[in-house]
Amino acid sequence: MFKTVLIANRGEIALRVARTCRELGIRTVVAHSTADRDSVPVRYADQAIQIGPAPSRHSYNNAAAIVAAAQLTGADAVHPGYGFLSEDPYFAEICQAEGLTFIGPSAEVISLLGDKMRARRFVSGLGLPVLPGSDPAVDDAAELARTAERIGYPVIIKASAGGGGRGMTIVEDPRDFPRAYAETRRTAQALFGDSRVYVEKYLETARHIEVQILADSHGNALYLGARDCSVQRRRQKLIEESPAPSVSPEDVDRVGLLAAKVAREAGYVGAGTFEFVVDEQDRFYFLEVNSRIQVEHPVTEMVTGVDLVREQLTVAAGGRLTLRQEDLVPRGAAIECRINAEDPDRGFLPTPGTIEEFVAPGGPFVRVDTHAAPGARITADYDSLLAKIIVWAPDREQAIARMDRALGELVVGSREVRTTAGFLREVLAHPLFRDAKHATSLVDQMCAD
Amino acid sequence: MFKTVLIANRGEIALRVARTCRELGIRTVVAHSTADRDSVPVRYADQAIQIGPAPSRHSYNNAAAIVAAAQLTGADAVHPGYGFLSEDPYFAEICQAEGLTFIGPSAEVISLLGDKMRARRFVSGLGLPVLPGSDPAVDDAAELARTAERIGYPVIIKASAGGGGRGMTIVEDPRDFPRAYAETRRTAQALFGDSRVYVEKYLETARHIEVQILADSHGNALYLGARDCSVQRRRQKLIEESPAPSVSPEDVDRVGLLAAKVAREAGYVGAGTFEFVVDEQDRFYFLEVNSRIQVEHPVTEMVTGVDLVREQLTVAAGGRLTLRQEDLVPRGAAIECRINAEDPDRGFLPTPGTIEEFVAPGGPFVRVDTHAAPGARITADYDSLLAKIIVWAPDREQAIARMDRALGELVVGSREVRTTAGFLREVLAHPLFRDAKHATSLVDQMCAD
Repeated sequence: MFKTVLIANRGEIALRVARTCRELGIRTVVAHSTADRDSVPVRYADQAIQIGPAPSRHSYNNAAAIVAAAQLTGADAVHPGYGFLSEDPYFAEICQAEGLTFIGPSAEVISLLGDKMRARRFVSGLGLPVLPGSDPAVDDAAELARTAERIGYPVIIKASAGGGGRGMTIVEDPRDFPRAYAETRRTAQALFGDSRVYVEKYLETARHIEVQILADSHGNALYLGARDCSVQRRRQKLIEESPAPSVSPEDVDRVGLLAAKVAREAGYVGAGTFEFVVDEQDRFYFLEVNSRIQVEHPVTEMVTGVDLVREQLTVAAGGRLTLRQEDLVPRGAAIECRINAEDPDRGFLPTPGTIEEFVAPGGPFVRVDTHAAPGARITADYDSLLAKIIVWAPDREQAIARMDRALGELVVGSREVRTTAGFLREVLAHPLFRDAKHATSLVDQMCAD
Repeated sequence: MFKTVLIANRGEIALRVARTCRELGIRTVVAHSTADRDSVPVRYADQAIQIGPAPSRHSYNNAAAIVAAAQLTGADAVHPGYGFLSEDPYFAEICQAEGLTFIGPSAEVISLLGDKMRARRFVSGLGLPVLPGSDPAVDDAAELARTAERIGYPVIIKASAGGGGRGMTIVEDPRDFPRAYAETRRTAQALFGDSRVYVEKYLETARHIEVQILADSHGNALYLGARDCSVQRRRQKLIEESPAPSVSPEDVDRVGLLAAKVAREAGYVGAGTFEFVVDEQDRFYFLEVNSRIQVEHPVTEMVTGVDLVREQLTVAAGGRLTLRQEDLVPRGAAIECRINAEDPDRGFLPTPGTIEEFVAPGGPFVRVDTHAAPGARITADYDSLLAKIIVWAPDREQAIARMDRALGELVVGSREVRTTAGFLREVLAHPLFRDAKHATSLVDQMCAD
């Protein structure tokens, strides 16, 4: 196992990773920006090293600074968390070249799966269904417009290098296609340095279902059930749960085993997520692979009892998965609510500021992952995720009641900071959510009412 | 189900009960002393009612005041928590007489099992082994001294009405017997209003193992695995875990099924604990029944997934247990550490005072049950339990590492208040504890070193 791991991330996930490292006796170094110098993960780690000013390109996205920090502090591995450089094949490559273990799949595998067009072709070749869409070899306005006509509007134009809900445009009307195409290319170039886009059928009423996989370097791969992440606002997930209540265990097993097979065939090592949209006829369509730990990984941990970060570390260090597919018997139901520092009454505007009072919920089957604390400053430099509250219960109905109770216990006292907790309680109480009949459109519908 | 439950307790257990009530949609009233008026459970409850000054006899042990409070606030049931009146048959009787549901077994059952001499006879008649001891019909100094000679020293003199580690004296030398006998009778009279005592063989190297049971009013009873509570200081438990690592699952199953049978035969309704000592030859001997929720109940909840307070409420309201013995498949290992406001460097002297800063541990598989919060005052009026930290992991070794990590995260900032957290980390690191070869003597040995 590693002696020292450098955590190239911030916020709750930096703390999350440091906690498991500590349990494993691994020394932790948190690489941080100047804005985060007093943050909880920085104080928690065995060592902290400043890598640059607040803007991410100068710190959390600065591969050279991170590698230098790892070398200076004697780290033998780098955990990238999620976001930032976690899915950047060049970062994985640089780490490797500098003798550091990148905790995640190889640069080659990230490249393959991170390129949505290549990934589409690869997974469909192994039996995973994909949505009708354009030929990856073609990236031409007129040709893609013809594809859109053929598969039928609405369509979605997606950046091949995109992910995490960014770099995509829905087109309802053929007349909007040329402008949307040009805009998405520009956005893709600006966000990902890669202007390639493709067209896919857009499902208006769909659920977002994803499958967690784990794979080691000895050819073992397995899946750990599914998560439903259909509660989204502008493609940002707000509430996630496992198991996915509206799909059949048989369907999950089928796509889960296929996802594990894809991981094996790709030579995947680490934790990963296969994202799907599911239509009204319960048909699964592959969307993308996230080749890193997800924000919503705790719901899988709660129902399976598996510490996913521990497994990431184990397989990155060359170890074997200690689990077998047949031993994974999920228990009960888990729900996660993302508490964002945003004001639902003002269009979910981020509300940076200082937290004066912070009381986390507690008691039976409640887990809190947060970097919030009394005195913590929430800056506008980063995303607005303040805390994740995760609950478990024997069934979904009890889990919803427990989450409502837990959200009611949360106190974020601040003159500036508002949170989404109250809004999330409204979602939990919504009949469509209660009956697990909601699609990804639920929150937008609620906000429109 | 009940509409309103009055919680006749304080501290973490009052909050624990209120949390489950809230999840069930039950309105909560906390009956509290003047000393607790600003406490977390009082602020948490839907309503709070002051029942008297700090000394327990004027408030938490004042049955008349509690019943009046329940009637004033329209409660239909009373949850007694642990300690105070939770095992008082007269309180259960008064509740019943006043039309309130006492959440626990009937007065008759509490009387039967709360009287240690009667309980000994009752359970041994149903097949549970008891330690060699005196005839319950006899309570005479000379006769008991002869029994002590016969069963062999050391012996323990116990108050028949005692419990919770109080009202008992160990006698090593026959010459000390008469004085110990007289003293224990006096203590028993003072503590429990009942001077009857009996003599039992005392095991010097023993483990404390207990079995959790649940029973409904429809004749169903089951057991939920065992807990090892051998880490004790002066018979007060400090660390508890489930499953019990040093006894065989077959032995647990055997005594567990017997305990469930005893509960059925006694007409027990509610949650209860059968306590045993286990000798070096792995022989179980029945000690006593605690006819209430235990401080250490969360470790059972973590491995079974069962909310024990929810089950208490369900069966008290006349409902059936929704569980069956064969469905209970414990998973992994759970450990609880009791964090007391005591100074281990000064003989575990209680350290009342004000808590300025309080940071609870968090992250994967960590649960915190506490009434501590910034600004909370820990008074000398009550026991020194400040918080319970409970962790779960797939196995005991990982659970120990996780608990050590969690204890390291706990911050109790105060000028006066000290905690036992650091001492408990020493216990976790002790080779005897690590190997699960410790007996109830471990902490006293550590303190003597």
